[in-house]
Amino acid sequence: MELSQYRELIREADTKIVLLVMDGLGGLPRDEDGLTELEAAHTPNLDRLAAEGTCGLHVPVGPGVTPGSGPSHLALFGYDPLVYQVGRGALSAMGIGFEMTPKDVAARGNFATVGEDGRVTDRRAGRISDELNRELCARLREIRLPDVGVFVETEAEHRFLLVLRGEGLSSQVSDTDPQEVGEFPERAKAKDPSAARTVRLVREFVRQAREVLSDQPVANMVLLRGFAQRPDWPSIGEVFGVRAAAIASYPMYRGLARLLGMEAVEAEDSLTGEIEALERSWTGYDFFYVHVKRTDSEGEDGDFDGKVAEIERVDAVVPRIMRLKPDVVIVTGDHSTPSVLRHHSWHPVPTLIWSPHCRRDMVDRFGERACMAGGLGPRIPATALMPIAVANALRFDKYGA
Amino acid sequence: MELSQYRELIREADTKIVLLVMDGLGGLPRDEDGLTELEAAHTPNLDRLAAEGTCGLHVPVGPGVTPGSGPSHLALFGYDPLVYQVGRGALSAMGIGFEMTPKDVAARGNFATVGEDGRVTDRRAGRISDELNRELCARLREIRLPDVGVFVETEAEHRFLLVLRGEGLSSQVSDTDPQEVGEFPERAKAKDPSAARTVRLVREFVRQAREVLSDQPVANMVLLRGFAQRPDWPSIGEVFGVRAAAIASYPMYRGLARLLGMEAVEAEDSLTGEIEALERSWTGYDFFYVHVKRTDSEGEDGDFDGKVAEIERVDAVVPRIMRLKPDVVIVTGDHSTPSVLRHHSWHPVPTLIWSPHCRRDMVDRFGERACMAGGLGPRIPATALMPIAVANALRFDKYGA
Repeated sequence: MELSQYRELIREADTKIVLLVMDGLGGLPRDEDGLTELEAAHTPNLDRLAAEGTCGLHVPVGPGVTPGSGPSHLALFGYDPLVYQVGRGALSAMGIGFEMTPKDVAARGNFATVGEDGRVTDRRAGRISDELNRELCARLREIRLPDVGVFVETEAEHRFLLVLRGEGLSSQVSDTDPQEVGEFPERAKAKDPSAARTVRLVREFVRQAREVLSDQPVANMVLLRGFAQRPDWPSIGEVFGVRAAAIASYPMYRGLARLLGMEAVEAEDSLTGEIEALERSWTGYDFFYVHVKRTDSEGEDGDFDGKVAEIERVDAVVPRIMRLKPDVVIVTGDHSTPSVLRHHSWHPVPTLIWSPHCRRDMVDRFGERACMAGGLGPRIPATALMPIAVANALRFDKYGA
Repeated sequence: MELSQYRELIREADTKIVLLVMDGLGGLPRDEDGLTELEAAHTPNLDRLAAEGTCGLHVPVGPGVTPGSGPSHLALFGYDPLVYQVGRGALSAMGIGFEMTPKDVAARGNFATVGEDGRVTDRRAGRISDELNRELCARLREIRLPDVGVFVETEAEHRFLLVLRGEGLSSQVSDTDPQEVGEFPERAKAKDPSAARTVRLVREFVRQAREVLSDQPVANMVLLRGFAQRPDWPSIGEVFGVRAAAIASYPMYRGLARLLGMEAVEAEDSLTGEIEALERSWTGYDFFYVHVKRTDSEGEDGDFDGKVAEIERVDAVVPRIMRLKPDVVIVTGDHSTPSVLRHHSWHPVPTLIWSPHCRRDMVDRFGERACMAGGLGPRIPATALMPIAVANALRFDKYGA
């Protein structure tokens, strides 16, 4: 089914869906007892949802593919990430609440360090402070380019956003970030003849930026990547008929959610803060995306016990979610981040769908191996979850006579 | 695999396949004991086939999609319903044995009631008798339109078929059925500029029909929907190399089967009548589609026990089918109709494939949860079943060298 076909099926209903995403939830067993993080965690509340619901493991993008957070979240929202592609620049813009227009081309910028020979010695300029970042962005904002507006905005640490605004700009510009220390910054190149003028503007920006930063001991260069325009996609409301709220502390996730027409609800940067935001906004929406970042961070730090503890903290707030009487709850991750690997991985992600109308399977606990025997199967495409949730919320009409 | 690719693989074989479809077979658990209709039913014969065969659950159209009977049956026959779309009008024509020509445009008609202000008060005119329907169709048949033939045929109760026959007609005409009581009938509109003349003819038909019916107390209006031409698809014989018989009492299913080149075998409108027809026609065909409607009707009536009883009646005739010595038997439904929901649903449908050459799995009974652990998996696309059946009938050659 294409999104446009689901769109035809929308019917109104007074039902609410919660999508609880523990970032990087999927794990791998530790040596001592062969348990994954989720299996090792004490999760009585999630186990009960698993027992009453339908379980399985989802494949975020495709077999063997380790996804970034952008594609894996798009898939969870029902958008095939191989079709709906968004550049890093546009994601960065959304993440800091920068409203892109159709005339804009955005890129993710890094403040970086180059040595006297011009080679990159630190792609992140020692992760400078947000304060210095803001000061340097103010200086870069003074750069003038012919016939286009220049916007430079702080993200955090060494990361900033560059947006060029003008007629006829193209995103078909190659990265200047060489991705490796010891290399020269790349010259921006046109991936398509139509990008020739944009490439000249980008090169001129980089030339002036290096001049502006020449007095800096560390942040003396900029590296740009992910040139992108604002995607023009159908909103999640158009596709699935829901008024959607995003409760996520990290800018990237809020940005992605906004791109799909969700409203980013204000929330304190903590699990409790997010649940409070969910409770506060309950009456205003009918789809709630709740994002927990720390499961992924602990996995990337290789902290098995830390990830277990975070999963248990999430389990402890599940009763507060259920007290709101949602009609459908999905609990899953956007991808796996096994702490034994210390990075995102390709492994399918444990998933449960709870609803009075889901068909209960034989799974009675939430864990990688338990879910393999579930009704969703051990390899359901992530893009299937959202339509199944909407169906369980009785928000689809019949297809065909 | 596309149908055209299967077509290349056909080989002759003296083997027979039975596809036994219990309409709306899939169910949901009742509260008292957590069993579905199929799980609650005593089905020793189906359980034996399940034990000897390969089991699973099929997804008729796509994740979360609740299919109508047309698309879900097309999928069972191996035709992707997102590719092979047929309008309601063409289905209706096939169902009553009206042979459409390439010059025809057909629509499903309802006799309806409109109030003095012209608004619809009953979309089904109180479900008038077949007899009155026939009388009114005879009157509508007198309507004359310029340069096209007008055919009006009784289906049943309030339902009739309208066919316009002439050069250059188009099916790109919008419905006049507003689908809601309290609304005015819609004016037919062209979905495509090429339909302008057809729209004028349809409007003129509706105008005259209202005049003709003006003396009627209840059936004083017609509503039209699903304008369609006869699809021109490869037959099931061309695609899978089988001489196919359809044994189905309901017109719609016979119509759909005919559309795919099956022969609709005469059968009494009962389970026994259908099995007798199967026995009678056994030597003449090598693929038999047998359709049992009442499982779906009981589900739509919310009659859990009624659906259980019908499943048990079907189980009781299984030995008669097996006595014919089929080479392959598929038992499944076209979709789920859980009696707790009282309508079609999106849930995967229990399926068993029995054949001496299927690979036996660990499932030893036929039920939703048992099938989840089967060799077909818990979410096999419905379109995969027909090729697997044909393979088990040893009717496919090797693909590639």
